[in-house]
Amino acid sequence: MHKRVLTKPDGRALVLYARVPLPDGIEAPSPNTAPHAPNAHVRWHPLRGEWVAYASHRQNRTFLPPPEYNPLAPTTDPAQPTEVPQGPWDVAVFENLFPTLTLAAHGPPDLMVPTRPGLGVCEVVVFTQDARATLGTLPLCHLELLMDVWADRYEELGSRPEVAYVFPFENRGVEVGVTLHHPHGQIYAYPMVPPVPARELEQQRAYYDQHGRGLLADLIDQEIGEGSRLVYESAEAVAFMPVCARYSYEVWVAPRRSAASFAALTREERREFARALKTVLLKFDGLWNKPFPYILAFHQAPTDGVPHPEAHLHAEFYPAYRMPGRLKYLAGSEIGAGVFTADTLPEEKVKELQAVAVDVDA
Amino acid sequence: MHKRVLTKPDGRALVLYARVPLPDGIEAPSPNTAPHAPNAHVRWHPLRGEWVAYASHRQNRTFLPPPEYNPLAPTTDPAQPTEVPQGPWDVAVFENLFPTLTLAAHGPPDLMVPTRPGLGVCEVVVFTQDARATLGTLPLCHLELLMDVWADRYEELGSRPEVAYVFPFENRGVEVGVTLHHPHGQIYAYPMVPPVPARELEQQRAYYDQHGRGLLADLIDQEIGEGSRLVYESAEAVAFMPVCARYSYEVWVAPRRSAASFAALTREERREFARALKTVLLKFDGLWNKPFPYILAFHQAPTDGVPHPEAHLHAEFYPAYRMPGRLKYLAGSEIGAGVFTADTLPEEKVKELQAVAVDVDA
Repeated sequence: MHKRVLTKPDGRALVLYARVPLPDGIEAPSPNTAPHAPNAHVRWHPLRGEWVAYASHRQNRTFLPPPEYNPLAPTTDPAQPTEVPQGPWDVAVFENLFPTLTLAAHGPPDLMVPTRPGLGVCEVVVFTQDARATLGTLPLCHLELLMDVWADRYEELGSRPEVAYVFPFENRGVEVGVTLHHPHGQIYAYPMVPPVPARELEQQRAYYDQHGRGLLADLIDQEIGEGSRLVYESAEAVAFMPVCARYSYEVWVAPRRSAASFAALTREERREFARALKTVLLKFDGLWNKPFPYILAFHQAPTDGVPHPEAHLHAEFYPAYRMPGRLKYLAGSEIGAGVFTADTLPEEKVKELQAVAVDVDA
Repeated sequence: MHKRVLTKPDGRALVLYARVPLPDGIEAPSPNTAPHAPNAHVRWHPLRGEWVAYASHRQNRTFLPPPEYNPLAPTTDPAQPTEVPQGPWDVAVFENLFPTLTLAAHGPPDLMVPTRPGLGVCEVVVFTQDARATLGTLPLCHLELLMDVWADRYEELGSRPEVAYVFPFENRGVEVGVTLHHPHGQIYAYPMVPPVPARELEQQRAYYDQHGRGLLADLIDQEIGEGSRLVYESAEAVAFMPVCARYSYEVWVAPRRSAASFAALTREERREFARALKTVLLKFDGLWNKPFPYILAFHQAPTDGVPHPEAHLHAEFYPAYRMPGRLKYLAGSEIGAGVFTADTLPEEKVKELQAVAVDVDA
């Protein structure tokens, strides 16, 4: 993997990743010319016992721009610079123009609850130069490079003393609020371990302390042994609809071994993780022969300086639909009480995905 | 308050509440004729450490029926029975035809994770006979009766040994997935204390043990002292945008005293809670002069047989919009990590609500 670190005219970082060496002279464009000076803070929510992030400069961020301007496509007209340059790069990563968290955060307000600067990093990950591609249509070797990018970001962002947790994710589809349709994901580097992975790690830690093994690794072994909810299986990686799926088409993808992060994956595991991921993505899009909206979340070990033998990298897909044309709304029970209500059974829904034939090598 | 308990032809309960005595001879209708035999189960989610509810018979439930059939309006044509009868009732409560939890639950599947019958009760609360009314347009005396209904349901459902938590809520608007537009709410009676109130109670308990006072009561005192985020204030009740609001227009409504539940409210507190609630509802609808979609969640003390001196009844409104025409999508950070990202500040947004003049006595 070849990597080039550049700085945009407004001061933001741009990192290009490529399978081929990158030529000299590539310059980092930016649609923004003013010096980048974001600010953000977090406030303690005493009743929920969690931090809430405030970045009020985000209010006017780009929203469904006209098709002729795509900020994530390589710049063709220097008078209309985008976020990424021309060149033989495969994946580009840059600092979000409207970050929720920023290393420039300073001067949090003095309030009746504890506050802190919203320290962290929010990055955009441009998956490819091709605006018409999707994560699932990218060739396996490209997805494998993306694994390397996520591993590199985990190490680079995680090594910062301000960052306790590196969270790559993809929001896909207008149904989940996506404003830019060029294939891309994001990475949030948080100053704390966020509530959802914190809760998972707490459960994993209790299991590890009791059994000396990984909770997710054992669950994976059980799912493979049972077999009925599997979507992909190999010696290195697995994809399955978990027995406790909260969403109708929820699928988890993971290495079989308890690798703590993208950085901990072997070459073979990256290849297989990519293959498992692509299998799921193609099945999703093949299910109703249309783009399948979802939130894709990657959970890995915190970078808070403490050992995490309980951690096990995995992807969780939360699809937006519960059946064709019917969205799953998170309403009273899910949002107000935290109890997910499923009107489908994983054992039945997984059959739909299993029935979709895909060719990941195509 | 007058109350009449009836049984529908399919075996479901119907409870009518009224300010005037109800005449004899009212019969409970039902659009369903087959004996009501729902089933449901819960599965343990080992990674999140929470229960997930499965009720696969819910898949085909009513969805945006044509306007000529409103199952929540009083039956006018005996050949097309609705869920509620004619008569001088003000509020009607009946068992959901497609419950997520049911006292009839039995025979949970044997799986690799712990399972249990989905024991509990799911009720629909018809706020009024008037299909064109909204919670906010109901007269104060009607809202006060609704407080009595919520108190009665808390006591009746909470007294069941299967029920550990009684959760009244309202989902309002197609934006949050509402399928029936007749003004109504729901009550879920869970067999466990759900994750969201459990987390809140944990924080409240720690504070109570340390300070001998209520966390929310102290927060309310601070908000009243500070004053800038108040929406309604009286000697008995308060409505405010909390300093740690996660949603742009999030508002909490509560009695000032640490009353543990609707049942614990005095007559004067019910009157004032109703007034605070109506004030907020009218301001929401007056903000953009159109119905304002939200999830309204009421948190109160569990009914799990354990004392809860830390509990403090309160309502939390989670509005769907973050600005006119722009929904707040819960995406990667909120759903995948649990970190809410706000692009507005409560101190600014509350001014919009404060500026809306309302007349709750009209």
